[in-house]
Amino acid sequence: MNQADDTIVALATAQGVSALAVIRLSGKDCISIVQKIFKGKNLLAAPSHTIHLGMIYDQEKPIDEVLVSLFKEPHSFTRENSVEISCHGSPLIAKEIIKALLKQGARLAGPGEFTKRAFLNGRFDLAQAEAVADMINAETDNSRQAALNQMRGGFSGEIKKLRDELIHFASLIELELDFAEEDVEFAQRDELRKLVLKTQSVVRTLIHSFDQGNVIKNGIPTVIAGKPNAGKSTLLNALLNEEKAIVSDLPGTTRDVIEDEMMLGGISFRFMDTAGLRETSDVVEAIGVERTKENLRKASLILYLFDLSATTPQAIEKEEEEIKKLNIPYIKVGNKIDKADPALLKKLNPEEFIFISASSQKNIQQLKDKILSHFHIQEVKQGDVLVTNLRHYQCLLQTDEALTRVLLGMDNHITGDFLAMDIRQALHFLGEITGSISTEDLLDNIFSKFCIGK
Amino acid sequence: MNQADDTIVALATAQGVSALAVIRLSGKDCISIVQKIFKGKNLLAAPSHTIHLGMIYDQEKPIDEVLVSLFKEPHSFTRENSVEISCHGSPLIAKEIIKALLKQGARLAGPGEFTKRAFLNGRFDLAQAEAVADMINAETDNSRQAALNQMRGGFSGEIKKLRDELIHFASLIELELDFAEEDVEFAQRDELRKLVLKTQSVVRTLIHSFDQGNVIKNGIPTVIAGKPNAGKSTLLNALLNEEKAIVSDLPGTTRDVIEDEMMLGGISFRFMDTAGLRETSDVVEAIGVERTKENLRKASLILYLFDLSATTPQAIEKEEEEIKKLNIPYIKVGNKIDKADPALLKKLNPEEFIFISASSQKNIQQLKDKILSHFHIQEVKQGDVLVTNLRHYQCLLQTDEALTRVLLGMDNHITGDFLAMDIRQALHFLGEITGSISTEDLLDNIFSKFCIGK
Repeated sequence: MNQADDTIVALATAQGVSALAVIRLSGKDCISIVQKIFKGKNLLAAPSHTIHLGMIYDQEKPIDEVLVSLFKEPHSFTRENSVEISCHGSPLIAKEIIKALLKQGARLAGPGEFTKRAFLNGRFDLAQAEAVADMINAETDNSRQAALNQMRGGFSGEIKKLRDELIHFASLIELELDFAEEDVEFAQRDELRKLVLKTQSVVRTLIHSFDQGNVIKNGIPTVIAGKPNAGKSTLLNALLNEEKAIVSDLPGTTRDVIEDEMMLGGISFRFMDTAGLRETSDVVEAIGVERTKENLRKASLILYLFDLSATTPQAIEKEEEEIKKLNIPYIKVGNKIDKADPALLKKLNPEEFIFISASSQKNIQQLKDKILSHFHIQEVKQGDVLVTNLRHYQCLLQTDEALTRVLLGMDNHITGDFLAMDIRQALHFLGEITGSISTEDLLDNIFSKFCIGK
Repeated sequence: MNQADDTIVALATAQGVSALAVIRLSGKDCISIVQKIFKGKNLLAAPSHTIHLGMIYDQEKPIDEVLVSLFKEPHSFTRENSVEISCHGSPLIAKEIIKALLKQGARLAGPGEFTKRAFLNGRFDLAQAEAVADMINAETDNSRQAALNQMRGGFSGEIKKLRDELIHFASLIELELDFAEEDVEFAQRDELRKLVLKTQSVVRTLIHSFDQGNVIKNGIPTVIAGKPNAGKSTLLNALLNEEKAIVSDLPGTTRDVIEDEMMLGGISFRFMDTAGLRETSDVVEAIGVERTKENLRKASLILYLFDLSATTPQAIEKEEEEIKKLNIPYIKVGNKIDKADPALLKKLNPEEFIFISASSQKNIQQLKDKILSHFHIQEVKQGDVLVTNLRHYQCLLQTDEALTRVLLGMDNHITGDFLAMDIRQALHFLGEITGSISTEDLLDNIFSKFCIGK
């Protein structure tokens, strides 16, 4: 464990006027730095995990009455000495206290620097550190649970175990190279094949979990499409309004509402309203239609609206042909059912459509059920292992490729040195997931996306 | 000390994604309520002021890894058992934990309810409780210091002492009433007069401190006025822009900028840009001019701008006559100095004007110095007692009036029962400041202005 010589400080709670704000410090000298501006008990003599009331001073000027929490290494988040100062929740006060700490030798923490120190001190591996950020940013219960599972170990242990076994084989093969003249095989090829197959099976299970993991983390892009005046915006409002009332049932939890996002069955759906699709010679409208098509291509699901008050079976058929070309799952929604011609309705197969009235909110729940049935997302449970991080996913894909090359190599009886190279590649990508192999660039790239104070 | 039977809970830190969020509970059973959803150490057996790592569960579902801080009565802010749960800084997680606590019997706290309990349990008096809110809302160093001084005692002690002495006299006078037949005087009239005069002197000192206190708390309303096109908006921008760069020198402390507010020498100035003043027959413009005049009447200082590129000494003189009528301090600012006719400049007394060029930011600092010199605001130091609260100010004014009636009554030798009535009035208003006398309505009115979680 390496305790950093410099002490970092940052506001750890959200900005804004509130009851409390917490300022966090970490580093070998952080307790003595706080002691210099604190009048109260002798913090240096106090045990870990205790709380002390006192006043913070900047030189002789009193700033605030605070509670100071002490965490002595290695029993802290960063495994270094750490202090949390809980002050009154005023941006001005937090700023004044941080200023006073800077004067005493602390420096402002960069984004994710506390978590980076925790990682460097072996508190957890890289995949777990990244799960800390995912926890904080989780917007649904499922994504929070997936991040929590990963933070508490997740696939890290399994990957580490497989990697250790592969390392064993790699070293045996490299040993063979030293005795190349004698043509011996220290590494049993059939044992190696078994291990590679086992590893590949685990890696592929994780790769497949990314589909669900990604949906859980990022939501499902769902586009509402249809001809102009089919009622797309009305439907979006109908879908969103109803849910907004539900999410705000607990006071004090209101967040900025992302206009077009809503939860259905624990999954976040990103509904995109689109400009009506039609052939047009108007240049501006053409740009709108082009954007619609771009959105459509990114969608995982299309809700295609037909205006039943102004269409024919032939027109519906023609439109559906266009949708089919996109090769994306779609739901046919017949809107304005209350104004539809009964003769038209007779000609439509009711099993193919959801008939709604967006303006009078009729059958909106049926539509929601239908949307959900397209995604067999199960609730994430304690212990479920899901890959939700794009970086991990890419490392896993590259590991899989390297392992395939190892198997192919063995099939073709390639020499040990080439085999060793492919195994080393697989080891490299597996190691990048958990941070067993990491570069300063990689770490900077990961932690710079964290918030300051984390 | 009354520990409340019900346990209140609220998010204590600001809303938003951040490293940490803190959930606060208070009430007799709060530790056992938290224990029900916490897996870790036995919190009930742990000593006060200790911190414990563990997992929060909602039924069997794990929510987050948290730190739990324990405060056992009476050693807490509310003097009741209290718990602070420090979780990952995600609005979703905080909401889930609060939900789990509600299921176990806690209830959501109302605004200011923690502070109200602290007051009811004798942690501090009402004036100090109000200072807690002022601390949180302080936007300048001076207002923070004034609130801190009040929070730590301020004038509460002195008022309490004077009030106790007055109560002594009031009871003696009321004793006289019981012996009215015998015409005795238990309360020495000259002693009473001395005490009333002493009390009145203290009360009046506090009343006078309100002028400075109010400026420190609420800022100084400063209006920029002048004819259309005199450069008022340009000057506002020049004054604000320069300062904006200065206030944002510390990363992570940026707040929403109140468009027209700025700090000069530790005081907040609220600059108001105004519609140009002129006689007009246009109805819409006339409304604008009327609003300007309203603002002018509320101002503590007027920066009156003359467009030196398009005026005459006679016009300036005429305008100044109009300003004088408002009977508010004003600074004469000659704008567009770089385009001014030298002949005009020769005719103006340079000691009466600040000559600037708002567009090229010339002499803006001189203008600021001039503004500051109008307000002899000193830095608030530790121990300085200032009345910053309008409610306290009004109580003090009413106390002063009642005391004046007591003195007048003694001069006119009114009977003891009338004297006692006036003294009781003075006692009542003094008591309202510190909360020795309070009604549920008064408390509700005060604490409803607090934020939830405080």
